[in-house]
Amino acid sequence: MAQKPSIPKGTRDFSPLEMVRRNYIFDTIKGVFRMYGYMPIETPAMENLDTLLGKYGEEGDKLLFKILNSGDFLSKADKALLEAGDSGRVTGQISEKGLRYDLTVPFARFVVQHQNDLTFPFKRYQIQPVWRADRPQKGRYREFFQCDVDVIGSDGLLNEVELIQIVDEVYRQLNIRVVVKLNNRKVLAGIAEIIGEPNRMVDITVAIDKLEKIGLQKVNQELEDKGLSNEAISKLQPILALSGDNFSKLNALSSVLAYSEVGLKGVDELKIVLNHTKSLGLNTPVEVDLTLARGLNYYTGAIFEVKALDVEIGSITGGGRYDDLTGIFGLKNVSGVGISFGADRIFDVMNQLDLYPTDVTAATQLLFVNFGEKEAAFALKIANTMRKNGIRTEIYPDGAKMKKQMNYADKKGIRFVAIIGESELNSNQITIKDMNAGTQETLSVENAIQTVVSGL
Amino acid sequence: MAQKPSIPKGTRDFSPLEMVRRNYIFDTIKGVFRMYGYMPIETPAMENLDTLLGKYGEEGDKLLFKILNSGDFLSKADKALLEAGDSGRVTGQISEKGLRYDLTVPFARFVVQHQNDLTFPFKRYQIQPVWRADRPQKGRYREFFQCDVDVIGSDGLLNEVELIQIVDEVYRQLNIRVVVKLNNRKVLAGIAEIIGEPNRMVDITVAIDKLEKIGLQKVNQELEDKGLSNEAISKLQPILALSGDNFSKLNALSSVLAYSEVGLKGVDELKIVLNHTKSLGLNTPVEVDLTLARGLNYYTGAIFEVKALDVEIGSITGGGRYDDLTGIFGLKNVSGVGISFGADRIFDVMNQLDLYPTDVTAATQLLFVNFGEKEAAFALKIANTMRKNGIRTEIYPDGAKMKKQMNYADKKGIRFVAIIGESELNSNQITIKDMNAGTQETLSVENAIQTVVSGL
Repeated sequence: MAQKPSIPKGTRDFSPLEMVRRNYIFDTIKGVFRMYGYMPIETPAMENLDTLLGKYGEEGDKLLFKILNSGDFLSKADKALLEAGDSGRVTGQISEKGLRYDLTVPFARFVVQHQNDLTFPFKRYQIQPVWRADRPQKGRYREFFQCDVDVIGSDGLLNEVELIQIVDEVYRQLNIRVVVKLNNRKVLAGIAEIIGEPNRMVDITVAIDKLEKIGLQKVNQELEDKGLSNEAISKLQPILALSGDNFSKLNALSSVLAYSEVGLKGVDELKIVLNHTKSLGLNTPVEVDLTLARGLNYYTGAIFEVKALDVEIGSITGGGRYDDLTGIFGLKNVSGVGISFGADRIFDVMNQLDLYPTDVTAATQLLFVNFGEKEAAFALKIANTMRKNGIRTEIYPDGAKMKKQMNYADKKGIRFVAIIGESELNSNQITIKDMNAGTQETLSVENAIQTVVSGL
Repeated sequence: MAQKPSIPKGTRDFSPLEMVRRNYIFDTIKGVFRMYGYMPIETPAMENLDTLLGKYGEEGDKLLFKILNSGDFLSKADKALLEAGDSGRVTGQISEKGLRYDLTVPFARFVVQHQNDLTFPFKRYQIQPVWRADRPQKGRYREFFQCDVDVIGSDGLLNEVELIQIVDEVYRQLNIRVVVKLNNRKVLAGIAEIIGEPNRMVDITVAIDKLEKIGLQKVNQELEDKGLSNEAISKLQPILALSGDNFSKLNALSSVLAYSEVGLKGVDELKIVLNHTKSLGLNTPVEVDLTLARGLNYYTGAIFEVKALDVEIGSITGGGRYDDLTGIFGLKNVSGVGISFGADRIFDVMNQLDLYPTDVTAATQLLFVNFGEKEAAFALKIANTMRKNGIRTEIYPDGAKMKKQMNYADKKGIRFVAIIGESELNSNQITIKDMNAGTQETLSVENAIQTVVSGL
């Protein structure tokens, strides 16, 4: 009995149309990366589990797809644990490899492993799928693509400026209106320090993050629920009340953080970056957003998030600076900064707003109708000449009914159809039918080429 | 303690140089595919195990990488089997997904699953990694790339002709000298039939395959060892003795196979394909090779193999016609034909023969030296202008020592270095140093652009 074919939930097939559109997005992004001197790398889909485990928190460890060891994998498993049904502890005994969960940890592993072959600052981009055993839902997949761009081995703030330029240029080319939200982990650390809760940075930021949604009163309630002292909460109020443009926010922040060294350093870093982006005159607005925290705890400086203005979809690009990403693999004190473009969300935005240029297609431009062996032999040669002239050309492979062949051209959106029957064969000519205009002409090969080329 | 980073055996990291070279190969192949009207698709890395199992033989089933179910996977496993350590039978209880093993089975699954959305004949290409738990060895990897091109839903022999044209064009562009070996499964079936051993086609072909290596006598011995009758072996002798060019081989074969309908059909198919490729005047020699069998038992017509002439590396491209690939997924009587380019072997050949054009690089073309914040702010703007003129441009992100920055340019093979010091800043000029020529000039921005553009 035949199987009913399907694919694992949360994964996708990509049709030709989807591929062409996705490639348009990827090619645009890559083109910008390259203009700024970033070079591509790729890492394997499978990493050793000890490279991946412990890097994404407890929840992340659970969401890793693990590869079953080959052969008699049970022989290495502890009988007692098997009997007890202890899946968690058995996992490590029957699985040594996992699928990559993001591109950041493999990148850190790559940099450490190949450090002697790399020139620092090392600027790389990487566009590959990643896998997470998350519950699939609309817009969230178990296999999805990340486009990461990072520079490692430099703490200069020009790198941050450059990444914002890249965001600006990518979305200008893709025609998506966005805003860049900018914050700095040092500022967040400074705030926590100033209010006397230096270890509660994350709790505080998570609460601040909800300001717009739930209002000041509820934010304060949440902070209290989390055990922050009344004194700390009251010290936080001037920060929650900050408003105005970037530079007025930063000036106010400078006063509030006057006694936090790290906080002032953060403010200073933000100022330098913003001065540069301002004088570059970018299309994209860049906004200081103190509620921006980003979950990943390896960030130590700038943090970025990019939001589309015309679609409700959350962040479509994000990243930040990390001062010790490679430390876990044995390479200390190497600072880097990077961002990740969310290819699948960008794809959704482009589709929703229908932002593809009309020439984003790789479809056939000319189809030779097939009337039989003799005609096809003639068509084969002329088709070759057409291809040499850059025209994407097919010959219908079977001597099927004319109607079927024309239907094929129509369904595939092929603009021109070439007809070679007996009379064309005898006169060494081709009849070219323009499917858009509905017109047709019988022409010499040279004129036929010209007609097709100039019509495309 | 820091981990010593490594990757699973049989997998690879690709450095920027390797990526650029591999992309050159992929882009060349894709460009040719598109010229012939093939469109890209992609399928997920993970497929359901029931899609994959049983499609690659018993050995193939073992070589599939299987994904461990998430969560409490042991709860679905049979206690008795766990206790007995029966890894084989436990596998199916704790794993439902596997990594794709080739692109052919996922393609068949794709065609059946999306049959109502596709226009037939459906011409697709697919370039993705595949995974096999093979023993890694030189030139054989556990993660490697396949580039497949197939047309499905047409039994016209023009498809075979077209695939040979594609091989010819790809290797002409890549500058690799190759020969196409051509055979037909129907001919092999005919031979088995004629010698009275219709079910021994594979044994016979495997033996014939060794003719060049071990000689006629040993081939006959092997056939005897495999249980072929003396009569069958003696009937086989005229076929083993076939020589000369394609058409004399085929003519001789026509007499030998005179009483095999399927055999004659195979000879006829070969003749039609060869007549077309001959009149097209390809660069690549196409040779009928009766010893060519190819292991995969879904082939039913033409079979191809492409060998590089200047490197000992085995087949670098291969494929054939299959009349019922989609049958297993419930779509009967759909014939197709396709070939697979072995990207990793092509990469090895290109490296060994050093066949890359000199401009295969995506490296930075211009580096702005960084003397500090004021100079960098000026450089940022001019760098933007450079990029708008198509020049891949970097600014060194830190105010490091001049020597370090020049060293960076040197190591990365950057041709031009732009120097903006105080005097340049005051005169609104740039000093451009040509690292190849060792010369330098102080120029206006416009002239600097021109110097760089014309120097590249």
